[in-house]
This record gives sequence, structure tokens and C-alpha cells, in this order.
Amino acid sequence: MMGYYKMIWQVLFSLSLVSLGSCAQGFLARPTLRDASRPDPGGLRATRSYRTCYITQKIDHFGFSEDRTFKQRYLVVDRHWNEDTGSVLFYTGNEGDITWFANNTGFMWNIAEELNAILVFAEHRYYGESLPFGNKTFSDVKYLNYLTSEQALADFAVLIQHLKNTVPGILNTPVIAIGGSYGGMLAAWLRMKYPNIVIGALAASAPIWQFENLVPCGTFYRIVTEDFRKSGDCCSQSIRNSWAAINRLASSKEGLKWLSSAFHLCSPLKTLEDAAVFKAWLSETWVNLAMVDYPYKADFLEPLPAWPIEVACKYLKYSKLPDKLLLQNIFQAVNIYYNYTGSTSCFNLSQTATKSLGLQGWSYQACTEMVMPLCSDGISDMFEPQKWDLHAYSEECFNTWGVKPRALWIPTLYGGKNISAHSNIIFSNGGLDPWSGGGVTHNITDTLVAVVIPEGAHHLDLRSNSPFDPSSVLQARLLEVHYMKLWIQQYRANKGPK
Amino acid sequence: MMGYYKMIWQVLFSLSLVSLGSCAQGFLARPTLRDASRPDPGGLRATRSYRTCYITQKIDHFGFSEDRTFKQRYLVVDRHWNEDTGSVLFYTGNEGDITWFANNTGFMWNIAEELNAILVFAEHRYYGESLPFGNKTFSDVKYLNYLTSEQALADFAVLIQHLKNTVPGILNTPVIAIGGSYGGMLAAWLRMKYPNIVIGALAASAPIWQFENLVPCGTFYRIVTEDFRKSGDCCSQSIRNSWAAINRLASSKEGLKWLSSAFHLCSPLKTLEDAAVFKAWLSETWVNLAMVDYPYKADFLEPLPAWPIEVACKYLKYSKLPDKLLLQNIFQAVNIYYNYTGSTSCFNLSQTATKSLGLQGWSYQACTEMVMPLCSDGISDMFEPQKWDLHAYSEECFNTWGVKPRALWIPTLYGGKNISAHSNIIFSNGGLDPWSGGGVTHNITDTLVAVVIPEGAHHLDLRSNSPFDPSSVLQARLLEVHYMKLWIQQYRANKGPK
Repeated sequence: MMGYYKMIWQVLFSLSLVSLGSCAQGFLARPTLRDASRPDPGGLRATRSYRTCYITQKIDHFGFSEDRTFKQRYLVVDRHWNEDTGSVLFYTGNEGDITWFANNTGFMWNIAEELNAILVFAEHRYYGESLPFGNKTFSDVKYLNYLTSEQALADFAVLIQHLKNTVPGILNTPVIAIGGSYGGMLAAWLRMKYPNIVIGALAASAPIWQFENLVPCGTFYRIVTEDFRKSGDCCSQSIRNSWAAINRLASSKEGLKWLSSAFHLCSPLKTLEDAAVFKAWLSETWVNLAMVDYPYKADFLEPLPAWPIEVACKYLKYSKLPDKLLLQNIFQAVNIYYNYTGSTSCFNLSQTATKSLGLQGWSYQACTEMVMPLCSDGISDMFEPQKWDLHAYSEECFNTWGVKPRALWIPTLYGGKNISAHSNIIFSNGGLDPWSGGGVTHNITDTLVAVVIPEGAHHLDLRSNSPFDPSSVLQARLLEVHYMKLWIQQYRANKGPK
Repeated sequence: MMGYYKMIWQVLFSLSLVSLGSCAQGFLARPTLRDASRPDPGGLRATRSYRTCYITQKIDHFGFSEDRTFKQRYLVVDRHWNEDTGSVLFYTGNEGDITWFANNTGFMWNIAEELNAILVFAEHRYYGESLPFGNKTFSDVKYLNYLTSEQALADFAVLIQHLKNTVPGILNTPVIAIGGSYGGMLAAWLRMKYPNIVIGALAASAPIWQFENLVPCGTFYRIVTEDFRKSGDCCSQSIRNSWAAINRLASSKEGLKWLSSAFHLCSPLKTLEDAAVFKAWLSETWVNLAMVDYPYKADFLEPLPAWPIEVACKYLKYSKLPDKLLLQNIFQAVNIYYNYTGSTSCFNLSQTATKSLGLQGWSYQACTEMVMPLCSDGISDMFEPQKWDLHAYSEECFNTWGVKPRALWIPTLYGGKNISAHSNIIFSNGGLDPWSGGGVTHNITDTLVAVVIPEGAHHLDLRSNSPFDPSSVLQARLLEVHYMKLWIQQYRANKGPK
């Protein structure tokens, strides 16, 4: 079961990966930039370059026995900064390589000039190059003890303080946290826990309520199902019917062989357990498609067409076919996701998203703090019924990592539904995004505001402007900038004239 | 140097110690109370009894490798609770035995009925009975790794959640944090970091700004000096002149012998180092007197008279006496503090306050997070000049505990001067209290308010009502209750009718 939930998270940020040039180290060093002009997946061309810097961080912010340090990587773009009117837009890195996030957060690059902003993209510890114990980091679970959201937030707070104390002219520059998905949760939590450090946060597609006892566990799969239901006649029903068809085939050696061949699997299915992994891989594919159901062609491991669910659903118009015919159609739909260009020779069940994501790190986090209940019933959703079973989940975590999840800790630590005492956080969510079920989609107070993008998938608003953007995301971005400017104005008004 | 600062903290709560009866364990168990009627040191008689309970807490809230638990002690008084109109007043325990704090926080007992409140007194980990590693806790510094303010706040948050989830009828009862001194800092920080858990906080005599770069390090000793200056002609000048007199005597064996005898020391002074310890002990005595300069007789290790500085200053009317005459007068003044009843046969330089305080624990905390710069110049204060030297302090910490202090961590973590985004905290300070120099003594916002008690020493407002209370403390208590009622009203209004 664990693998199932674990893998879903794998693709939270499965967006296009383009390698950018790095540059001179050290924040104040004159950069020797290697600009990387490239086609923007969102449609606009942009020149994106940054400096790569490192800060020495304590491995343990919350204890004094472990006094060693590591290098945290962060990226800086300061060509638009104005000391008198500017701001710092601080990307709270999540579970992957920070260069990949920097390149997939076009929104920040797009608004940097308007806000006279320095962009800072901070890498999350235990991901990318920011490994507390270097090559040894994932060699023993004892080294993972400092992989928590609290430590990550402390890194961010210390980094911002460091910049304020060392970059000339920046001391009184207001800092705004921006992040998406888990990074959006971190942005919101950074504002909640360190309002002295950031004046506000944009938390895009941040499922801060996808935790024990806060939202129904079934909403996630219902939203995925709804995306498919709306995208073509019989589409979700075809998928709903596919599980029984697979189960019937998987009950014989011959059927397993047929499935392996029909789905072009690199390793053939041999047992019922293999078939379960196969079904989890399929489920994850549908979830992935819902998360990246963007209105334009976008790079995503392999290129995807605009509105990919609609394209996939063209193969799923008939739900009451004989098993093999139905599953051949399912294969065609899956093929859109994994093989849009037609260059993939076989499918690997353990590979569903970019390698820029840190799967091991996230698996550990999901087994400790980030316990996000999901369930399906097969009736209000198109998935096989699966209850949320914390006990079984916990057992699997213990077997995998030797640790037990603490399901109630995050709601205690970060407030659960009870967050109205905080301020200056924008929670944006896409109506197509399954994670919106755990997000904040209604205003909580005048300063804890929700922005809903009905036509948006997973943090579409953080992506570059595109001519194909629906008006709802354009409006969302305008509103987000409006709030950020308001916070900056209020901050400057309170500080008085410079 | 370390010992000097360390010892000052020793007496933050050096108030009367009266042993109370404990009672049945378990929050819901019917108590078999052993009421302890006793004269109230503040003047009023009161019957004080509580139930003693324990909660299982994670030793490490911020990491998953250490999954063991310990028993945290807390005390409960619920005879005034009303489910519909009531509140929880939650004492955030500080560096000592919780029964001692419960007995020295008469204010909470006095207002319990008016607020229909349950009182909960939570013991701070590593103090009293709440030892994470039992008898081994202080046997090796490795066991002290979980002694931090963050862990203590997490304990409090988990305990409150536990009560809400287990005590019938309490789920929607608003909780207010109350604490004094370091406990006041914890109360304020609990509200800042867990506004989902407590609706507000009374932080009495909480020097949240007595940290690196936030306030001048010399204010503390200037306030002590001012207390003595105002309490008698030549009083502070006599003390200022005493150091040179001691130094002259300490330069000879004969002089050391004379000092040992004149001051009735249990262990005679033999070296210049001994003389330095002797001077630190004297300094601490003056600081202690300033902290507990209460308007009525109070138990304090040994009983103290009302306005003890005034009494001590009666012996210090002549500052320009020959060395030995001056120091004989100094002895008489010190004698007020250590031997008001005349039953002490000799003075022990390592014993300046109640044993209910956890000296080892606090020493470790002062060497890790709680780095509170203090300094003196001998001109604007009556003490020997002593610069604040973080480097030397750090070295001494490393020699003592094998850890190095992180002087900037607390301001980063808890906001330093930049706390206006928070709400519902009362910062009360006494004008006579040296710690008020590091406290919040002006309103920050409409909901972060300062209450100043000009005639108050260290958290006088938290003590029981007394006929000898100056009107300023009576007004302060009224105002504090007013704010608490306001928070409760607002909370209930937001929750809607029950």
C-alpha cells in the first residue's frame, strides 16, 4: 500500500526539466553568467540565468549535540532588484533538485521586474545537492533524522537572515515566500512560524489539510475521477471497469503474459503481487494526468499534448467492451502519458516521473511527518476500493525505514483547521488538481485568502505566462501580485520613509 | 564568568516553597484530596490542592530516530470549571519543580473562580519529576540533547491537545497560557508558535528581548543599582565601593581570612579565584534582592521582610568608611537576605536560592539557546566592570557541557523585536525587576500589550493577592483579567452559540 501513496507524491512536480547554466558562486561575487535561452514550455521565450550559491547550515537546528554543518544550495537572480522599492521573492524548495523547480516556476521570473525583486530559490535539505551527509546521506536511516519540515523551515529562516545581514541594502527589503505543492505548504508554514522573516506567502496547490481527521480521504480520487468524467463520454467508466478486467486476466499465467505484452512492460508480470504493482502504476498514471492537465503542450518527462486527459479519453469512449478490447484502449490512453512522441520502447513500472524528484527523501518524509490519508471506494471514484489504514501504513513504514509515522503531529504543529490567527497567506488551488481537496479554497480571514482557478491543474499559476492560459489563471496571477504589492506597501508604511 | 550569569538565573523564581499534598493520578480519576491549608505568603489564606497527572511524551518531537517516551508531570485543579463558560489557564512550567511554581502563582488560584477555569500546571521537561531519561538524565551530556525551548513548547502543545481529546466537555474550551520569567517567555512563545492551541498568553516578567543585539547588556545591572539607590542614602555607593575594598583585602592571606570570617563563610577563601567567586555571590545577592523586593514579608529560602532592599540599605548609609568597616556593613546587609531569622550558622557560596530550581538544566540551557548578554561598567551601575564576552562565554560552555551556544538562534526563532504579526499577548513587567530591561514595556499593537507595574519586582502580579499590594499591581491584575475575558469572549463569538 505504501508504494501506492508514495508514488503519487513522486510526481507532484513532474513538470518540464531543462538544464540551466550555473554561475559564479558567492552571493556578492561578480557572476560569469552562462545564459540559457530556451523555448519556454508555457509559450513565452525567456532568458533565465541565475547564480548558484551555498550557505553553511547546522545539520540540527533543534539540538546541540550534533554541531556539524552542511552546504545548502540556493539560486539567486538579482538583475531586477531595486534597493528602494524592491522585494525578495523566496522560493521555498521542496522535494527535488532546486534548479528544476527554478525552471518550472516561470511566474516568479515573469513578475520579478514588476516587483523589482530579487529571486532566491532555496533547495530543501536532503534533495538535489543539499545533502547533510554528502554521499552517505541515504546510506543509513540514522542520517535521515534531520529530514523534517521544521528543519527545512529553519534552514530557510537562517538563509534569509543571512542574506539580510550580508547583502548590502537588503536589510529592510520585504521577503515573500512562494512555493507550490509541498513547497507551498512550506511557504505557508514559513509565514506561520516565522512572520518575522517573511511578510507573506503564496502557497500554490498546497494541501495543508490533507492530514489525519481534517478532510475526507476520498476527495482526492473523486477529483481525479471528475476530471476524466468531464473529459469524454464513458472515460471514467472505462477506467472504473478496467480493474475487474485486469483482475480477471491476472488470475491466469496466460492473462499476465497478455497484460505484459499489451502494455509493453519492460519486465513481465509474473504474480498477483506484480499485478497489484501494475494497477498502482496505472492509478498513478491517471493521477499524474489530472495533476498536469494543462491547457497547452508541456514537457513532462516526455512531452504531453494540451489538455492531455481529453486526448487520453478519446481512446476510452466505450466502457462495456470485452476485457482485452477495453484494456487495449486503456493502453492507448496510458501511451499518451508515457509515450506521446512514440519513442519509448517499453514501460517501467517504477518510473513515473522526472528523476529530479527525490523519491527516497520523500518516502522517508511520508513515513514520518507527511502522512496524508487517501482512500477510494470505486463508486464515487473510478479507482479500486481502498480504505485508509494507518496501522498497515505504519507497519510498512517501519519495515522500510525503521521509523513510525506520527499522523497527528503536523496538524498539532501547523494548526490544522485552526489557522485564523495567522495573516498574509494566499492559498491558490486549481479546480482540476486532486490536491485541491486538501487545500484551502475559501477565505479564512481578510488576510488569509483563497484563490481558486477552476480550469487549473497542479499550481498552474506558478508556471510561465502562456497565450493558452485560461482567463481564470491570468486573473489569479493578477490577484496574487495585487496581494503581494499590498503586503509590501503595508510593510514599507510601517517602516516609515527610508 | 559563566558561573556568574548562571547563578543569576538560579533565583528567577526564588519564592516561597510550601509542600502540597498530591492526589489521585489520572485526569478523570476521582481524587482523594489531601488539602493543605497554609498561611498564604501574600497575605490571604487559601486552600490549595491539585491532582497530579502524567502524560507520555515523545523524547524528541523533531526527529524520528529517537522514538522513546517519558512521563511529563502536570497538576490539575478543576473545581471551578464550568463547561459552558469556562477556560483553561495553562501554566507553562519553567526551570524547576512544578509543585513549587504552582504554589507560587497565587494569581491563577485567585482568578480561577471568576473565570470558571481549570488550572493546569505543566512541568518543563528535565525539571522536577519530568526527566526524559530518569536518573540517568544528567549523567551524560548526550541525554541533554532534547532540553530546548522548542521541545518544551511541543510538550505543552501535545499536552493541551491530549486534554482536549480526552477530558469530556473541554474540546471547545479556550486555553490561555500563563507563565513568569522564563516560563513567561514560554507562554508568549507558545502563543506565537501555536496560536491554534492557546488563544492568548500572559507573559509576566518575561525578558524575551534579553538576547544578542536586542537590548543594551547594561540595563539589567543599572536597574538593580537604581533599586538600591532609591532605597537609602549612599546605599548603592556603599556597594560600589565594596569591590575595591574586597580586592584590597583579597590580595593578602590575612585579608582573605578576615573576609571569610567577617562573612561567616562555611568554606574559607584561599585564593584570588575564591575571592572572585565570593564577589559573584555578593553580586547575585544584590540581584536577588532586587528581584524579590516585594512589599510584604515573603518566604524566600529564608523569610524576608517587606521591602527587603530598604531593610538592607539601613546598614549601608556610609559609603566612605575604611575597608573593614564598610564590609562589616555589607555583611549586615547580606545577612538580611540569607539569615533574616538568625538561624543560619554559615554561608555557602554555591547556594543562593531554593533547591526547587533545576540548576544543572538551566546551566545547559544557558549554554545552548538561552544566551542572555549582561554587562556592567561600574559607573552607571554599582557592580565591578564586566564586558559581555560571547567568545569567553562560549569557551566556558564548551568546557562545561561540550556544547557551544548559538546566540542568534532565539531571536531568529522567536522573532526578536519583530513580533507585531502575533496577537493576544500581555507582557507585564515590574519597574523594580532587573529583567524588565529585556522585557516588552510598550504596547506593540492593540493585541500585544504591555502592563508596567512601577512598584513591582519579579512577576509580583503572578503572586497571591495581598493587603500590602501596591495599587499598581492590583490594577495590573484587573487589566490582565480584562484582556483574558476579552479573548475568551472573542473566541466564543467566533465559535458561535454552543
